[in-house]
Amino acid sequence: MSSRPRLIIIGWVHSPFKELVGTPIQPVLARGAEGTVEILPEHTDGLQDLAGFERIWLLYWFDRAPPARLRVIPFRDEVPRGLFATRMPCRPNPAGISCVRLLGIRDRTLRIGDVDILDGTPVLDIKPYVPEYDAFPGSRAGWLESCRNRRTRADGRMNPKTLG
Amino acid sequence: MSSRPRLIIIGWVHSPFKELVGTPIQPVLARGAEGTVEILPEHTDGLQDLAGFERIWLLYWFDRAPPARLRVIPFRDEVPRGLFATRMPCRPNPAGISCVRLLGIRDRTLRIGDVDILDGTPVLDIKPYVPEYDAFPGSRAGWLESCRNRRTRADGRMNPKTLG
Repeated sequence: MSSRPRLIIIGWVHSPFKELVGTPIQPVLARGAEGTVEILPEHTDGLQDLAGFERIWLLYWFDRAPPARLRVIPFRDEVPRGLFATRMPCRPNPAGISCVRLLGIRDRTLRIGDVDILDGTPVLDIKPYVPEYDAFPGSRAGWLESCRNRRTRADGRMNPKTLG
Repeated sequence: MSSRPRLIIIGWVHSPFKELVGTPIQPVLARGAEGTVEILPEHTDGLQDLAGFERIWLLYWFDRAPPARLRVIPFRDEVPRGLFATRMPCRPNPAGISCVRLLGIRDRTLRIGDVDILDGTPVLDIKPYVPEYDAFPGSRAGWLESCRNRRTRADGRMNPKTLG
């Protein structure tokens, strides 16, 4: 393997969120927000059989994230946390995962709900959400269990323009 | 953004699984299998606050996956499915996500359980598993709800040596 593998963009997210400030910080906090994923023609054959899944994982690239920082104050807290204990976008590999609702598929366009992703975000992969593999409802969630605010939308802290 | 972003390896998986054949196909099917993730020194500061989480997402690169195929017979089925409706490794971007148990952290080594990842796999990201964001126990799971076998370990179908 090359020491720094390159990524392929397989499609693009279209969403109501044009800038980070005000964008929901997780799909579960984005109820009602709808958007689409447009898959590039050369990858369309891979969409077969996806329609039976209620939710899908989108793997995407935080293309407007600020540079990586290993200590960050998460949207839901007021003290710095280790980056890998957060879902913040300023990561060594700025890749996000979002479990969105799959509302429908027509040709190479997926209609999705509970969208927490910026408009124009490049998509890297789609995987089916499988409760047997992915759902652990009682799992302990560290600092998030006593987090200091219940913010549901991003504020300016990840906005490159306001970062010192 | 460059049209083909490059990835950074932040660490390595050490596991009992030296080759794909016989490796569990999902963490939930790997109960009892333990391993470690060794994070490279320059990323260690990001591990703070992670210990409180019972499970973590590992995002990793399927470095020994065969080339991408958009139609594939999944380990749990006997007919071809659209790749994006499966979790198979032969993807345009061969990135995997596994929700493993976090058993402990010492310095820059994470001890992990329910490991379904090949020994020597490069790690791209660690995210906390947050039930509020990630657990949807009742979500419909398409073809997997009536899948034709309950195989729990990989067979030879993704082995580059046996591919046509």
